[in-house]
Amino acid sequence: MLSNTQIILVSHPQGMVKASDMTLQTTQLPAQPPHGHILVAIKYISLDPAIRGWLNPGTTYIKGVQIGEVVRAFSAGEIVESNHPDYQVGEYVWGLLGAQQYAIHNGQGLVKADLSKGPLSWHLGVLGMPGMTAYFGLLEKGQPKAGETVLVSGAAGVVGTTVGQIAKLHGCRVVGIAGGAAKCQFLTEQMGFDAAIDYKNENVLAGIQRTCPDKVNVFYDNVGGDILDDALAHLALGARVVLCGSISQYNSTDPRGPKNYMKIVTARGYITGVIVFDFVERYAEGINAIGHWLQTGQMKVQEDVYEGLENFASTLLKLYTGENFGKLLLKI
Amino acid sequence: MLSNTQIILVSHPQGMVKASDMTLQTTQLPAQPPHGHILVAIKYISLDPAIRGWLNPGTTYIKGVQIGEVVRAFSAGEIVESNHPDYQVGEYVWGLLGAQQYAIHNGQGLVKADLSKGPLSWHLGVLGMPGMTAYFGLLEKGQPKAGETVLVSGAAGVVGTTVGQIAKLHGCRVVGIAGGAAKCQFLTEQMGFDAAIDYKNENVLAGIQRTCPDKVNVFYDNVGGDILDDALAHLALGARVVLCGSISQYNSTDPRGPKNYMKIVTARGYITGVIVFDFVERYAEGINAIGHWLQTGQMKVQEDVYEGLENFASTLLKLYTGENFGKLLLKI
Repeated sequence: MLSNTQIILVSHPQGMVKASDMTLQTTQLPAQPPHGHILVAIKYISLDPAIRGWLNPGTTYIKGVQIGEVVRAFSAGEIVESNHPDYQVGEYVWGLLGAQQYAIHNGQGLVKADLSKGPLSWHLGVLGMPGMTAYFGLLEKGQPKAGETVLVSGAAGVVGTTVGQIAKLHGCRVVGIAGGAAKCQFLTEQMGFDAAIDYKNENVLAGIQRTCPDKVNVFYDNVGGDILDDALAHLALGARVVLCGSISQYNSTDPRGPKNYMKIVTARGYITGVIVFDFVERYAEGINAIGHWLQTGQMKVQEDVYEGLENFASTLLKLYTGENFGKLLLKI
Repeated sequence: MLSNTQIILVSHPQGMVKASDMTLQTTQLPAQPPHGHILVAIKYISLDPAIRGWLNPGTTYIKGVQIGEVVRAFSAGEIVESNHPDYQVGEYVWGLLGAQQYAIHNGQGLVKADLSKGPLSWHLGVLGMPGMTAYFGLLEKGQPKAGETVLVSGAAGVVGTTVGQIAKLHGCRVVGIAGGAAKCQFLTEQMGFDAAIDYKNENVLAGIQRTCPDKVNVFYDNVGGDILDDALAHLALGARVVLCGSISQYNSTDPRGPKNYMKIVTARGYITGVIVFDFVERYAEGINAIGHWLQTGQMKVQEDVYEGLENFASTLLKLYTGENFGKLLLKI
């Protein structure tokens, strides 16, 4: 038997998620997975904004985590035992393996991590779910054209930096909204953004007007709230608003909607969204494209890595307070 | 000279529009219009929800009415003098002729009313701007398919009844949301709706769940506010939300947005809107289609007609209190 440490949900969060909503628990696992299953030793756990929604009891696009269950998370690890014909010991995989040391899994929905494209941790970021969210959300839903202006909120996160870099590679003017001078400097100096707006230190609408003289053709929104309203107020004709997340509202007990929503009518545009799972059949296309840009130095990666499963909740909280800088990961 | 009574804006409304925001004024007009102009004797003035927005000072898709100007309105009348080669005395026209007895106009943007298609008043309703808004908004923006469920708010107004009837003619299941038992009965018994939800006497979300067992494929929204949130909560996969108006918010000094806006993401749908002026080149197509349905008895008209220019403001108010029943008109 193997000893397996896990993060278990003990209460559905009310408002802001708290460390006390989860607990660390150690259980025993059989060292050999059952027929058709693999045993994965998890190396990295991904802290993603979506986790907050999964901790609610109801079902949205996916069933909420129930009390007593392992907290859902994307994780990446090495296969240490296999009783599944499609998976070999020594291969690396990523997927919804949960916030735990080891996972027994039937392989469904897992993706093999090709380490020739980048180190394992990147497969939870730019080569994984956030990268695919950025790639398909921007290109399929946002339909950016060369010369257009793409505005992205939550720009210093992994989705934001990936959206911005892909938009630049497609010939767009790219503006990011992020919190603090350091993040804004990072966007323009490291990530190739044309401009950045510091929502903590300037009026966002004035910032959008300043940096988007031809208005906004594509707004890729990770945050919602006031920033969404400000972007809606400065849309170009035919604008596309791609809703990816609304992190500013995830911990609110009384989330609010965009009061400027009718601006999409005057802009003759549309508001839509992206659910990355809809593109699972096309991940290879996205991974190949981003892998190529990474290998040729046309795209950069920024990671923010913490250690230790016991720090899961405190690390997760950094997402919602805007403390993280690039892809937030927990190394096991 | 001719004596011309007009409705003049004296103050931009704060919150709910008041009769005291306007005044009646009589001016003198030359009996002969200048070169390239016509003189129209107005017979009907259309009371449309959009008027409230036009009374704000700012510019949205059209410049706001300024203090001292004639209140903007769609009107229909007879040409009584012409100094314009394209217009003959005795012809009937509709367009932005304003809330007044007579208009001198250069003809730009006016539409000739073909009375063989229906009486003059219909050209301000189902054969005019509201009819075109319904026709192009539903068919071009909503893209309804036979067998789908179309939900419409503000259903007992002229746009709502036209949307519902066109959707029925395209093989859809049609549900309307309106205020009061009489309006709901009118929708199902007179206008061919499959079901109606009385927002004044039932929980709207429960009503949508009850009447739309296969969820909502197209939501055509005239009202905004809570009803928009309720519709967003019950969208089918791939749903289209067509924003036409947000009459519940027009008189609010603190309009609110749909807090359920992220439901469009889970529904894999989109939110868009309709501006009727974008379809001006295609009005003939819409008028011919609706005219045909009217002549063959496949579509019905409901009008709510008041008399006298002095009652302009009090009649307009009926729109925002939900008192009107069908197309609201003022006969001059």
